[in-house]
Amino acid sequence: MTKSLAQLYPILFGGDYNPEQWPESTWEQDMTMLTKAGINSATINVFSWALLEPKENTYDFSMLDKIVNMLSEHHFKIVMATSTAALPAWMVKAYPDVTRVDTHGIRQGFGKRHNACPNSPNFQRLAKGLVTAIANRYGDNPAIVCWHISNEYGGQCYCENCAAAFRLWLKQRYTTIDALNTAWNSNFWSHTFHDFEEIVPPDQHTDEFETGGAVLGGESLDYRRFQSDSLLANFKLEKDLIRTVDPDTPITTNFMGTQKDLDYFKWAKALDVISWDNYPSFDTPASFTAMSHDLMYGLKQQPFMLMEQTPGSQNWQPYNSLKEPGELRMLSFQAMAHGANTVQFFQLRQSRNGCEEFHSAVISHVNSTETRIFKETAQIGADLKLLPADLLTSQKQSEVAIIFDWESYWGVDFSVGPNVRLNYVDQVHAYYQYFYQHNIAVDLISTDADLSSYKLVVAPLMFILKTGFADKVTDYVNQGGTFVTNAMSATVDEEDNVLLGGYLTALHDVLGLWVEEWDSLPPVNNCRIQFDNQTTAKADMLCDIIHLETATTIAAYHTDKFYNEYPAITANHYGQGRAFFAGTYLDQAGMAAFGQQLITAAGLTHPDDQNDGVELTSRYSNDYRYDFLINTTGQAKSYHYDPATTTAHELLTDQLIQTGDYQLAPYAVKIIRA
Amino acid sequence: MTKSLAQLYPILFGGDYNPEQWPESTWEQDMTMLTKAGINSATINVFSWALLEPKENTYDFSMLDKIVNMLSEHHFKIVMATSTAALPAWMVKAYPDVTRVDTHGIRQGFGKRHNACPNSPNFQRLAKGLVTAIANRYGDNPAIVCWHISNEYGGQCYCENCAAAFRLWLKQRYTTIDALNTAWNSNFWSHTFHDFEEIVPPDQHTDEFETGGAVLGGESLDYRRFQSDSLLANFKLEKDLIRTVDPDTPITTNFMGTQKDLDYFKWAKALDVISWDNYPSFDTPASFTAMSHDLMYGLKQQPFMLMEQTPGSQNWQPYNSLKEPGELRMLSFQAMAHGANTVQFFQLRQSRNGCEEFHSAVISHVNSTETRIFKETAQIGADLKLLPADLLTSQKQSEVAIIFDWESYWGVDFSVGPNVRLNYVDQVHAYYQYFYQHNIAVDLISTDADLSSYKLVVAPLMFILKTGFADKVTDYVNQGGTFVTNAMSATVDEEDNVLLGGYLTALHDVLGLWVEEWDSLPPVNNCRIQFDNQTTAKADMLCDIIHLETATTIAAYHTDKFYNEYPAITANHYGQGRAFFAGTYLDQAGMAAFGQQLITAAGLTHPDDQNDGVELTSRYSNDYRYDFLINTTGQAKSYHYDPATTTAHELLTDQLIQTGDYQLAPYAVKIIRA
Amino acid sequence: MTKSLAQLYPILFGGDYNPEQWPESTWEQDMTMLTKAGINSATINVFSWALLEPKENTYDFSMLDKIVNMLSEHHFKIVMATSTAALPAWMVKAYPDVTRVDTHGIRQGFGKRHNACPNSPNFQRLAKGLVTAIANRYGDNPAIVCWHISNEYGGQCYCENCAAAFRLWLKQRYTTIDALNTAWNSNFWSHTFHDFEEIVPPDQHTDEFETGGAVLGGESLDYRRFQSDSLLANFKLEKDLIRTVDPDTPITTNFMGTQKDLDYFKWAKALDVISWDNYPSFDTPASFTAMSHDLMYGLKQQPFMLMEQTPGSQNWQPYNSLKEPGELRMLSFQAMAHGANTVQFFQLRQSRNGCEEFHSAVISHVNSTETRIFKETAQIGADLKLLPADLLTSQKQSEVAIIFDWESYWGVDFSVGPNVRLNYVDQVHAYYQYFYQHNIAVDLISTDADLSSYKLVVAPLMFILKTGFADKVTDYVNQGGTFVTNAMSATVDEEDNVLLGGYLTALHDVLGLWVEEWDSLPPVNNCRIQFDNQTTAKADMLCDIIHLETATTIAAYHTDKFYNEYPAITANHYGQGRAFFAGTYLDQAGMAAFGQQLITAAGLTHPDDQNDGVELTSRYSNDYRYDFLINTTGQAKSYHYDPATTTAHELLTDQLIQTGDYQLAPYAVKIIRA
Repeated sequence: MTKSLAQLYPILFGGDYNPEQWPESTWEQDMTMLTKAGINSATINVFSWALLEPKENTYDFSMLDKIVNMLSEHHFKIVMATSTAALPAWMVKAYPDVTRVDTHGIRQGFGKRHNACPNSPNFQRLAKGLVTAIANRYGDNPAIVCWHISNEYGGQCYCENCAAAFRLWLKQRYTTIDALNTAWNSNFWSHTFHDFEEIVPPDQHTDEFETGGAVLGGESLDYRRFQSDSLLANFKLEKDLIRTVDPDTPITTNFMGTQKDLDYFKWAKALDVISWDNYPSFDTPASFTAMSHDLMYGLKQQPFMLMEQTPGSQNWQPYNSLKEPGELRMLSFQAMAHGANTVQFFQLRQSRNGCEEFHSAVISHVNSTETRIFKETAQIGADLKLLPADLLTSQKQSEVAIIFDWESYWGVDFSVGPNVRLNYVDQVHAYYQYFYQHNIAVDLISTDADLSSYKLVVAPLMFILKTGFADKVTDYVNQGGTFVTNAMSATVDEEDNVLLGGYLTALHDVLGLWVEEWDSLPPVNNCRIQFDNQTTAKADMLCDIIHLETATTIAAYHTDKFYNEYPAITANHYGQGRAFFAGTYLDQAGMAAFGQQLITAAGLTHPDDQNDGVELTSRYSNDYRYDFLINTTGQAKSYHYDPATTTAHELLTDQLIQTGDYQLAPYAVKIIRA
Repeated sequence: MTKSLAQLYPILFGGDYNPEQWPESTWEQDMTMLTKAGINSATINVFSWALLEPKENTYDFSMLDKIVNMLSEHHFKIVMATSTAALPAWMVKAYPDVTRVDTHGIRQGFGKRHNACPNSPNFQRLAKGLVTAIANRYGDNPAIVCWHISNEYGGQCYCENCAAAFRLWLKQRYTTIDALNTAWNSNFWSHTFHDFEEIVPPDQHTDEFETGGAVLGGESLDYRRFQSDSLLANFKLEKDLIRTVDPDTPITTNFMGTQKDLDYFKWAKALDVISWDNYPSFDTPASFTAMSHDLMYGLKQQPFMLMEQTPGSQNWQPYNSLKEPGELRMLSFQAMAHGANTVQFFQLRQSRNGCEEFHSAVISHVNSTETRIFKETAQIGADLKLLPADLLTSQKQSEVAIIFDWESYWGVDFSVGPNVRLNYVDQVHAYYQYFYQHNIAVDLISTDADLSSYKLVVAPLMFILKTGFADKVTDYVNQGGTFVTNAMSATVDEEDNVLLGGYLTALHDVLGLWVEEWDSLPPVNNCRIQFDNQTTAKADMLCDIIHLETATTIAAYHTDKFYNEYPAITANHYGQGRAFFAGTYLDQAGMAAFGQQLITAAGLTHPDDQNDGVELTSRYSNDYRYDFLINTTGQAKSYHYDPATTTAHELLTDQLIQTGDYQLAPYAVKIIRA
Repeated sequence: MTKSLAQLYPILFGGDYNPEQWPESTWEQDMTMLTKAGINSATINVFSWALLEPKENTYDFSMLDKIVNMLSEHHFKIVMATSTAALPAWMVKAYPDVTRVDTHGIRQGFGKRHNACPNSPNFQRLAKGLVTAIANRYGDNPAIVCWHISNEYGGQCYCENCAAAFRLWLKQRYTTIDALNTAWNSNFWSHTFHDFEEIVPPDQHTDEFETGGAVLGGESLDYRRFQSDSLLANFKLEKDLIRTVDPDTPITTNFMGTQKDLDYFKWAKALDVISWDNYPSFDTPASFTAMSHDLMYGLKQQPFMLMEQTPGSQNWQPYNSLKEPGELRMLSFQAMAHGANTVQFFQLRQSRNGCEEFHSAVISHVNSTETRIFKETAQIGADLKLLPADLLTSQKQSEVAIIFDWESYWGVDFSVGPNVRLNYVDQVHAYYQYFYQHNIAVDLISTDADLSSYKLVVAPLMFILKTGFADKVTDYVNQGGTFVTNAMSATVDEEDNVLLGGYLTALHDVLGLWVEEWDSLPPVNNCRIQFDNQTTAKADMLCDIIHLETATTIAAYHTDKFYNEYPAITANHYGQGRAFFAGTYLDQAGMAAFGQQLITAAGLTHPDDQNDGVELTSRYSNDYRYDFLINTTGQAKSYHYDPATTTAHELLTDQLIQTGDYQLAPYAVKIIRA
């Protein structure tokens, strides 16, 4: 049993720290400054392979020893990374197969990072050597509170080693080539395979299109699964080596929210704790950040580490706005509200050179504790000390679940048509945002999750219907649940084979309808939907032509095409529950009208009116409820808050809180224990 | 002598059918359903090479035999394809040279389709083997009414085999390297060749620019000719093999309208019958579809097969709008109006998987005869039975011809400058559209065509002046014809050498002018033209500076530049005829003003006023005129129709037709035999 | 000592001439026509390697001899090129390493031009052979007045030969690998190098990003320096060969204004005389053309050759507007006003074929002396004869200098962040344009230049602070100079290492401030600046957060963010001088308000009000001032001109000039000797 995040107290407050990029003479000053900000931990050794192993099988831990010793002496907890996320130059020179081959068939050279071929035997052997040496040297170091394997896994490789490994992976999945041909429907375009050896990775110079679609959806889905699995095997290889010498320190790797490449639900099972890097851009809505946190929480339905965030500006986005005063603090507590049990930064000292030199840090290029960012960081450090250990044991409670499914995400992207503007994550967010705006807690769950505890389950654009899911939904609704899905959901099986008999055929009974065809709209069009109460909204991208059976219409198309007045959104009673279906994609006006009906139908408790930027999110421990009241905006806001108890207490200001209208300064945060 | 399309009766009504992608247990149901819709034929075996030849030189016709037998038993006529349009995976593995090398010099791997290198000896040998086996097995099958070789030929390869074949092709064309150097003007940029062996294919990693231009226009034009010829040789190789065993069944391959890669006029000579695939997108004007049909008709000035169209939505366009009720029927009869003698679909049963799964079909994913698309298809099937065999013998009659020249199309694209917005097909369409909007029939003809039967001949953006063409035009006008051309026409010879002495020098006498230089306009500008009657219109992209000799001005520039009031459009009397020249490109307002003068000058008969979406197109048999009166729009229209006879008869409703105002429902079609 | 441009009289009036692309029978006519236009020189042999060396080590000068003889006989001066700018096909076939490898790692094939690998031993050996032969043959030819080596050097190669040469270059620069690691801060992302042999060229398939940024700024800057040096070595190799046989004829290569690839200040030292090619596009402001001339002048602070300009339209730009009547003459004299001592064209006869066929020439496709372009050229020829030899000895005098620094140009591009819209040249132009619009002469200078002669020195976006520069500026201001810089200047050292202690720390004293952080603005924002006089203007891209020490605010931010009313533009007294700092990028309104204060502060003499398109630019000989009064627009303008002497004389019209309001026709030019 590994240690849990709840046992980490004082709350981990730190971030990436790369003293090897600086003269040793500067290190002591760092310790002094960071301590002044309340920083109590450091993530180290993320990209030091070339330093640690200057030539093959020769290790040099002298600098890392110094860093570990210094941090220990200054009572910093250590998040120890394994340094396998960037390859040394000598390795690429000696073993060219350690880098990836890109989608055009071109082998990459030395450079950048995150580009090791996961199936390169040389990479695997050399990574094993390094991690064994690190684990042996530091495995029993009491300062290490977490292991951080590699960094931000992602991407694909299309080399010969991957091709060979893919064939083995396919043999395990399908056993026979006939089974594979059937699954992939590979008689299409003369793709019939007579031997596993004939199969090559689908990329842009073979079987995928420049625009992202795939000739055989099943093949490309399998390759994506295989590449996600291959990187996961890299992770597990390292984890197992560490676990051999360190039985109980949590092991993680840092995730990236809604990234596409990896099936994080599958990965989550292999991680002891989830950690992730939160990099909103200047135009990211607060609801999207909240959704990303909820997704990371949802991977294990457990608190997570906020492994990285920038204290000021990013640099790799097109326009890297700074964070306004209070914004970093707001974002840090928003993360905690949604389940973060740590507050960490990339990074503690700003790079002096290299492509991240304009990515801000706690200690900026000014090299002073008098900067705005430093002082704001120190404020958060002080705030965190006011929060009790009990908070770290608290969890989320949600009546609403939204399904997030990486395979559907991939499937929509590999699909050729029906509309180039279709984007999986946008559709998940469209539904999430509605609940967020009403301060209704939402769990992001996988298709494997138990639905029974939720009053409302939404499956937006769930393109792939996995085996057993239709039965699960049917049972769920039959027993009183409320289910919502929309256009193009449940269209294909796990190998991209369309389910015949009218779209959504597998949910035919529970939805009370079937879909015959759809229209795909260009961006400029005059198609609208109209609800019973005469509210109208935009119909976007697709319009399903729905045949009602037991379902009824709650909104109809308003268009100059033949499907004018045809059903656009429907509701159906099934067993003890109800099921809703949106045959088109909705703008915020449409979501508002639809969402109100969902709240009523599911009998959701305590929804706010439109929250106008003030988020109220709760965590629950065995003894307390912690309400995070957060002004996510740069404008002053008023909010009527009712703690529903007379003993509510704001933790950062140590004040009693009663029901009333609260004035919230820009980015203000209240953490109320009730 | 091969059989003609006119002998095909009942009218071929069918489409692509790929039962090998489905369990055999489903086939009988297909037969029942398709028969119910009046489908009487199927195009099969388009992409089955990997099934037919599971390993080299081992053929397995068991499934194809079953398909052929089933179709025969159910009285379906067969369009038999040769399956060479997609390569088996084993072949690419065994012989990597069978795939193409792209414009960056990268050899493609296994995948997609339409990507065999035309000059690969391995591909040629293996294709020969397959087609020989197919021809031997099915060559005398009476159900086969047409052979369909490969599929949608196109694209280029830049491999070593192509390079070697190109050198041979050049030796045949030029005999000596000096002649080649002269033709290509290759002393430019040190391109002088001393041996044919020095020549490499011009691509983006050699002699062509990313933006599409070419260093040596002649070289790139020749490579385009060579690649078109290479694919044509592939076609002929297969055709000859079939012809050996089947003396009289028509052999075709499916064309793609105004595609750029192949010189269809050259190809047409090798085809027994033209067939093509019509895929308008949501914003394709009816005039463009009509023009494409007329171009396909014009390739042989004979009726053609409408080999593919989708009964509902496409999937590979950005926005794949569905066809509204009646729209498919309208498009099918519009095709017939312009010369189609068949109505065929891609496809009869919708793909279950693969990149075409969201391309609609007669039997959709609903798998029912109750779908809108199925019922609309069945309606067309019923309609077709009402049309007489005599219709298939009918032909077009046009007073107007527009020249379509693939070499000019290429030449404009290879030209560096003068304006990036210049688009060959758009310019052809600009003129076509004017006549279409006045229901004036137009033939699309090649530069080789006899002009003498036309009252008016238009050569839009005919960049390349072919040998003999100037004389032909001069004779034509001298003898009373009316000729129209415009800016950048007749600028270069067949190897891209500019004709000196003022642009259009070769047409100097007939046009009565010469052009000294031109201005190239950015998209935002205030340049206009003004006609004698004060009508103004936009001048677009280029403004020729015209020197009048015998010509007169019919529109002048209106601009703040020095050429204000200079001639923009001119007319010239020459011999018994007239020649017009537009020194700029025209919008619809400009075409309207110019076109009215052309109609008058050429004395065209029966032009309509602006047709407002109601097309009237005629075909003529020995005994009858068939008028197709078509509302191409989704709005109800009124049209005054005069059959010019008292015995006119609407074939689909079996009603007598008299002169009068007819109300036409959206997409309504009347076929009147007069 | 080589001959100077001032000794060239009559003024060189000519251009590129490629008779080898034409039948010899046409050459005599060219001579007649060109002579008629006053053309007195020709640039020849630019792209004839394949003709001159038909196979390796076999030279054939027969055609070049004829060309040289003909030109000599007709009294044309010759600019003799060396023909190494385009490779013969046989060479690429025999030695594939002579072409470059692109940024994706793909070796280019035969074609195009300007694509020899500078470090290919084969290319170097073969170029040496050719140039030796040319020098030996023509080295003492009295008609040759200038040698023109290669053509428009630029671009990069990433091949193995370049990699090896780069390692040598780095060993010379850094001596030890440790020094290199320190300079590049290469512990970042595991980039530590243990041996020079581990280093590979940074390109998109190694260490640079598709979007242009670099992982290690120092590495990419060094590679850019190395490639610039490599091409310069190619130049020097050829120059030295020529100099062996020809002791005094000036040797040049044609530059391209503000191009990015080469550090022209470094190159300029190796050239005897600067020459350049001026190709404004339809929307290039007159100020940008003027700046480009001033930059080319500034390379050696000496007059230059206007080696190429098109007499009419370009062809390789998206929209190739023609030059209006008088515009070519205006541009030719604008060039002279800014230091050109020649007027040359690309080209004398328009290409008949190839990718430059629509690039206009003195003799156009009309092949006539009656064309507008020919006659306008002849007018310039006649005008030039009216200008005295003394003019060629005249030089510029400027009170204002703007620093142009190729390394900062590269550095901004290699930087990842902070704002994708940031463009080095645009920022230089923003400041230049202000002075231009007030007819204030500006020198473009390098960071090495002596500043002491200027009243005002501006360093826009001078990202890299070179060793010694801060001291030089400090001395300059201390002694009374006025210095201006702006956001992101002086941010890093020559290896991209950020200078710590607050941005602009090295200029802290002289500017009287330090910068803590910045905001990066998206294109749509409401951030403004407001000057003391209430004038407002846009704040663009970056907003520095400035801490004033001794500086004062002259404009403050006006924004809804926290830095509202914070200083945006500042002024500081330091020693005898002043230093200004703009913390954001300015639009023309902002420059107008800021510039007015700079003029006053620096006490600039004779500034005009906003010049409204009428440029007044002066050159100074020992005896005279030459005022070029130029209407750069297509509209008539009025201008009040005061020659400040009673003996002023307009040279083209031979008229006395007195103080007064002059009406200037569109593109009118007056050259007044005062």
